Amino acid sequence: MKYPPSLVSLIRELSRLPGIGPKSAQRLAFHLFEQPREDIERLAGALLAAKRDLHTCPVCFNITDAERCDVCSDPSRDQNLICVVEEPGDVIAIERSGEYRGLYHVLHGVLSPMNGVGPEKLHIKPLLPRVQEGQEIILATGTTVEGDATALYLQRLLEPLGAVVSRIAYGLPVGGALEYADEVTLGRALTGRQRVSK
Amino acid sequence: MKYPPSLVSLIRELSRLPGIGPKSAQRLAFHLFEQPREDIERLAGALLAAKRDLHTCPVCFNITDAERCDVCSDPSRDQNLICVVEEPGDVIAIERSGEYRGLYHVLHGVLSPMNGVGPEKLHIKPLLPRVQEGQEIILATGTTVEGDATALYLQRLLEPLGAVVSRIAYGLPVGGALEYADEVTLGRALTGRQRVSK
Repeated sequence: MKYPPSLVSLIRELSRLPGIGPKSAQRLAFHLFEQPREDIERLAGALLAAKRDLHTCPVCFNITDAERCDVCSDPSRDQNLICVVEEPGDVIAIERSGEYRGLYHVLHGVLSPMNGVGPEKLHIKPLLPRVQEGQEIILATGTTVEGDATALYLQRLLEPLGAVVSRIAYGLPVGGALEYADEVTLGRALTGRQRVSK
Repeated sequence: MKYPPSLVSLIRELSRLPGIGPKSAQRLAFHLFEQPREDIERLAGALLAAKRDLHTCPVCFNITDAERCDVCSDPSRDQNLICVVEEPGDVIAIERSGEYRGLYHVLHGVLSPMNGVGPEKLHIKPLLPRVQEGQEIILATGTTVEGDATALYLQRLLEPLGAVVSRIAYGLPVGGALEYADEVTLGRALTGRQRVSK
């Protein structure tokens, strides 16, 4: 039995998506086959519209459909704070926390010499002219080996510019029980303990 | 911060896919954003082409882009055997095993009163005129509660037509260790034991 070419190519295109293997792609393709035509057209349209409308903000490299992103063009945001993150999704995550009213800078990746990602592949250079003396730069890259290395690299680059450089806190997640925390996290949580008595 | 509408609608459309929650949809959308335009156009094109070209075979309800599916229009297939499966993906799985040279019948679902799926929602009626006396009908629905119930329902429907009705074998998967098999499977494997001595 030969499979129809349009089924084969749909499965191939779906399996190129991250986290979707050949079996999931096949299941997705069969699911899509069962959906009404309008749903498929809406999905295809959303894909094309997103690619057409969206680009990175020339200042902070967040995703936007305007000339500048919503954060950069909002004068009420604290211009004295820049939070450096790995990916546009991290901006959404931080915005959801509701704890932050400063600006962002999206690197679009993380230093990873093993994968051939050096500083020149990230949006690091455009960050430098944004930094002013006395400004606080929060390094909010992930708490992975690569995230830590990227934060260290940026720290060394930004300190000579007179910026106050900080790193997001390590510690136990909220709602976390000590016995389930891994030893490295627990060690960091102890080292980073904060005095609560007056 | 407001998210660009085309980003929001892409995430919404992606999260309608089975097995893709809001977080995965967001990660997929950001991944797609980083891809070249041609890749996105190819994915959107594959979606539309699949919906345009593919339909179910009027005989066996397998997916095809021709008038009849490859299996139904192949005279070398054993016309005396019909294998009844739940989904088009099951046909692909059985074809891959290379053990089967008969015909198929795809139900496009499984009886599930809890979800309001009765016999009239499956392609059961068109199976009946296909069945001839002495023909073997292999019930290859899943070995779940619903799959078993569907097989039992079909058995009662098909036996009066003079067909030989069989059910795929239950047992240990190939490469399976006894100590890891669940007790129900092990019980079925013992009940279904086959004599190997002469």
